[in-house]
Amino acid sequence: MTRTIVASATREIIIGFDQPFCVIGERINPTGRKKLAAEMIVGNFETVIKDALEQAACGATMLDVNAGVTSVNPNETEPGLLVQTLEIVQGLVDLPLSIDSSVTAAIEAALKVAKGRPLVNSVTGEEEKLEAILPLVKKYNVPVVAISNDETGISMDPDVRFAVAKKIVQRCADFGIPAHDVVVDPLVMPIGALGDAGRQVFALLRRLREELKVNTTCGLSNISFGLPHRHGINAAFIPMVIGAGMTSAIMNPVRPQEMEAVRGANVLNGTDENCTNWIRTYKDYKPAEGGQAVAAPVAVNAPGEGAGNGGRRRGGREARMGRG
Amino acid sequence: MTRTIVASATREIIIGFDQPFCVIGERINPTGRKKLAAEMIVGNFETVIKDALEQAACGATMLDVNAGVTSVNPNETEPGLLVQTLEIVQGLVDLPLSIDSSVTAAIEAALKVAKGRPLVNSVTGEEEKLEAILPLVKKYNVPVVAISNDETGISMDPDVRFAVAKKIVQRCADFGIPAHDVVVDPLVMPIGALGDAGRQVFALLRRLREELKVNTTCGLSNISFGLPHRHGINAAFIPMVIGAGMTSAIMNPVRPQEMEAVRGANVLNGTDENCTNWIRTYKDYKPAEGGQAVAAPVAVNAPGEGAGNGGRRRGGREARMGRG
Repeated sequence: MTRTIVASATREIIIGFDQPFCVIGERINPTGRKKLAAEMIVGNFETVIKDALEQAACGATMLDVNAGVTSVNPNETEPGLLVQTLEIVQGLVDLPLSIDSSVTAAIEAALKVAKGRPLVNSVTGEEEKLEAILPLVKKYNVPVVAISNDETGISMDPDVRFAVAKKIVQRCADFGIPAHDVVVDPLVMPIGALGDAGRQVFALLRRLREELKVNTTCGLSNISFGLPHRHGINAAFIPMVIGAGMTSAIMNPVRPQEMEAVRGANVLNGTDENCTNWIRTYKDYKPAEGGQAVAAPVAVNAPGEGAGNGGRRRGGREARMGRG
Repeated sequence: MTRTIVASATREIIIGFDQPFCVIGERINPTGRKKLAAEMIVGNFETVIKDALEQAACGATMLDVNAGVTSVNPNETEPGLLVQTLEIVQGLVDLPLSIDSSVTAAIEAALKVAKGRPLVNSVTGEEEKLEAILPLVKKYNVPVVAISNDETGISMDPDVRFAVAKKIVQRCADFGIPAHDVVVDPLVMPIGALGDAGRQVFALLRRLREELKVNTTCGLSNISFGLPHRHGINAAFIPMVIGAGMTSAIMNPVRPQEMEAVRGANVLNGTDENCTNWIRTYKDYKPAEGGQAVAAPVAVNAPGEGAGNGGRRRGGREARMGRG
């Protein structure tokens, strides 16, 4: 049974086929968030702090941390800013973190200060990337997200994307990194642009699970890009990818409709034992009357609820979480 | 490609792997609805009419019609009442109907007056049932729902349920009824009572599709029996069963959260071409602000939207539908 272990200083989480779906909170990322980027550039971490606390309170299993505020000289500025952001986040919440950067020096700087066992996000099938990132992954003994594209870009052919994933897993093995420490992102296309995007991903997920026996992830909301009521598409996509074998996603845990889909799919997939988390979250749920279902959130989740059976506390420190 | 054709006088629908999910509206059924039963017994069809119009307006693909108001002398009373109910419903809406009764004489009486090509709901693996129902199914050249239980009851072992389904399909073949006219119900257990109920059904659905090549259905809301916020569980279950190959369900189309899950899964499964139905339904959708997703309905669906590509109008009659 494939198990990817990630950990903060005090909390260990298992990503795996028999585990509750791992929700990797995507919010701490200045890409496309001008206000957040402007704040981080001047050393203002108010939004980072709010996003960390809020995502944890909403039930994220892990948090992604990205500090890519600029495309100008990122090699010089990003390592320091990523380290600073990571240290703030790991001082606030006890969830495992994902170190998200396209700058190798930033990943290495963050790995030096990260507590526990973070996830490196990411490597691709590009030769230069593999040779830069895999030695760090090996050296720090951490798991890594493997994105299924290479020098030729993102293939529209899912067989090519599978082949790229397979190549990365093999290259990892060459570096002594086991397949259970590789979390493959098969790449999700917008369904509005490519009508076959859903079926492609479902088939890829089954192959990745059965043939490569790896855990999987994706940037979940890509699927609904360009469509109205994206949360509805996302919320239908989540149970389908979980049913097809996906074990984690980089997504927004603050969205109640998507989180409800995660919790429901965990129940149905048999990873919310005795429906404990579902019942705790929705026991006092009151839908609106008159046939009008409302997916409004009930913010009663235990911190890091996604951990489920796989989450074992290793220390005695209480989570310091609240609503941002 | 397996295709089950059902039809009203004017509208033909295909149930199939490449078709939008077929939503069989469950509301016209006095089982457990004392008020409806009391009305129907005295010949008051107000609620039947309201339920027919409302389910059609909410996007049902077909309507189930059940007139089992009493367990006292149903052989005498149910045929007449089912015929009366069926004639009212088929005079109101142009959706194909499902004739739902445990009384053979009622099914035969309804088959005599039903227009188009109704679905018979249901036969089981019980010898007596097979011998009573299959000759009618053959005589009237209609499709039939096959429920995977027999004289020994409902097995908790999914392999036994598969074997019962296989037996029914074989017995149908003996009667000259092709497999594409058998819609198997693998039987859905409550997930709150049986933690494996979801995975059992997903595995059964794949086998039914791949090995028996039949269409499938279920009483959808069984899955959430006994749990809080049942609509949330149902709404996660729908994309998962669709992803596993289920092609129809007997469910409540008046629930917006469930119907949103059906529409989203159709998009992702590639059966809502160009996302046409999704965009039409949700183009003006306004979620609540502040991270509070609301799944409130937008009642702009075209009648029988579930028909999608498979729904071809055979006559010029406009649908006579509205909100009840």
